[in-house]
Amino acid sequence: MSDLIRLYSYWRSSAAYRVRIALNLKGLRYEYLGVHLLEGGGQQHAPGYHKLNPQDMVPTLIDGERVVRQSMAIIEYLDETYHEQGHRLMPPSARERARVRAIAQTIACDIHPLNVLRVLDHLEREHFATPAQKEAWVRHWIDEGFSALESLLDENPSTGSFCEGDEPTLADCCLVPQVYNARRFGVDMTRYPTIARIEAHCLAMPEFDSARPEVQPDAPR
Amino acid sequence: MSDLIRLYSYWRSSAAYRVRIALNLKGLRYEYLGVHLLEGGGQQHAPGYHKLNPQDMVPTLIDGERVVRQSMAIIEYLDETYHEQGHRLMPPSARERARVRAIAQTIACDIHPLNVLRVLDHLEREHFATPAQKEAWVRHWIDEGFSALESLLDENPSTGSFCEGDEPTLADCCLVPQVYNARRFGVDMTRYPTIARIEAHCLAMPEFDSARPEVQPDAPR
Repeated sequence: MSDLIRLYSYWRSSAAYRVRIALNLKGLRYEYLGVHLLEGGGQQHAPGYHKLNPQDMVPTLIDGERVVRQSMAIIEYLDETYHEQGHRLMPPSARERARVRAIAQTIACDIHPLNVLRVLDHLEREHFATPAQKEAWVRHWIDEGFSALESLLDENPSTGSFCEGDEPTLADCCLVPQVYNARRFGVDMTRYPTIARIEAHCLAMPEFDSARPEVQPDAPR
Repeated sequence: MSDLIRLYSYWRSSAAYRVRIALNLKGLRYEYLGVHLLEGGGQQHAPGYHKLNPQDMVPTLIDGERVVRQSMAIIEYLDETYHEQGHRLMPPSARERARVRAIAQTIACDIHPLNVLRVLDHLEREHFATPAQKEAWVRHWIDEGFSALESLLDENPSTGSFCEGDEPTLADCCLVPQVYNARRFGVDMTRYPTIARIEAHCLAMPEFDSARPEVQPDAPR
């Protein structure tokens, strides 16, 4: 739509990381707007941001006048709107698209939502979970999801150097941030060799590398 | 693809309910295969089903030789593959599609995953949650998500008799099963008048009505 894209992001947010990768793969320049999820009770709850995103979540993408929410929806929006630019993040056939979406949704619906800050806070507040119990909770859901994902990737001939074939897609945009979280919480990635191989292949690309949490403008130095 | 579609479903599964609605809206006949999530430790863990769906989750759709997983991916697959048949479940423009997907993902990524059986079981086992605490947990995440969704729907002129305009889409396929769950757990739906209005409009259609949990072949009589 417009030539001014803005992304409300937080360096460590896995969902924002997905969109940063997609913007880079599409070759789209954007303005980075940091929303600190912890400072001052969380900037995502500020009235101005709440108006843009009533869920008080990052990311939110602004494309000209349009406000686009939800990381997977944003990524498909970018791919459809800037179709001729950069990498194609959705493959050409309905069968392949279904597989790419299913891999992305295995991560974005069945693993990641259980491990976000608001859920871990709630677990602590309502169920007296200790830091060790919260970390065990996170690892449990990642291990459960990655076990399924590893066999889905390992046993399917459509898997290539990326999740689907030899081009990066929405699925890889979701996979790499989830592996980042897995490592952060001490998940043993040697149990998931196919996932680890795809992650390494992705991170060798500058589009993935420059989307990493640590190199974002709001990351602590 | 084929004229034989099979759906592995469980009457009370919210994700399977979404796909049943979509199949009806597309006017596609299908064979219903019940997977009892509770009986005998859960039929979803049986080796034969695990091979089809390594996440041990319903639904799984079989379309001829193809195996399609993840409810939202299945619904977009059906809409793309059977494009000329029945209702169009995805609107024509990238902007509208992004909004439909964002509404669907608000439900399928941020509300529903926190409230499924495996999570409630884990909460009981690892965090000693009582039945009352599990119900409070469910209501908390539905209320949080529905508060955001109500304002997203209420304040946007794109909302019509359905979530997006006056035709049912993927968003409605996700909304109606989530309201079913909300009612089941005693959420006060008078707080969400726009959501309740859209639900009522949907359930007046035979395609939604005949997808309801209570009328499935594996529902208790």
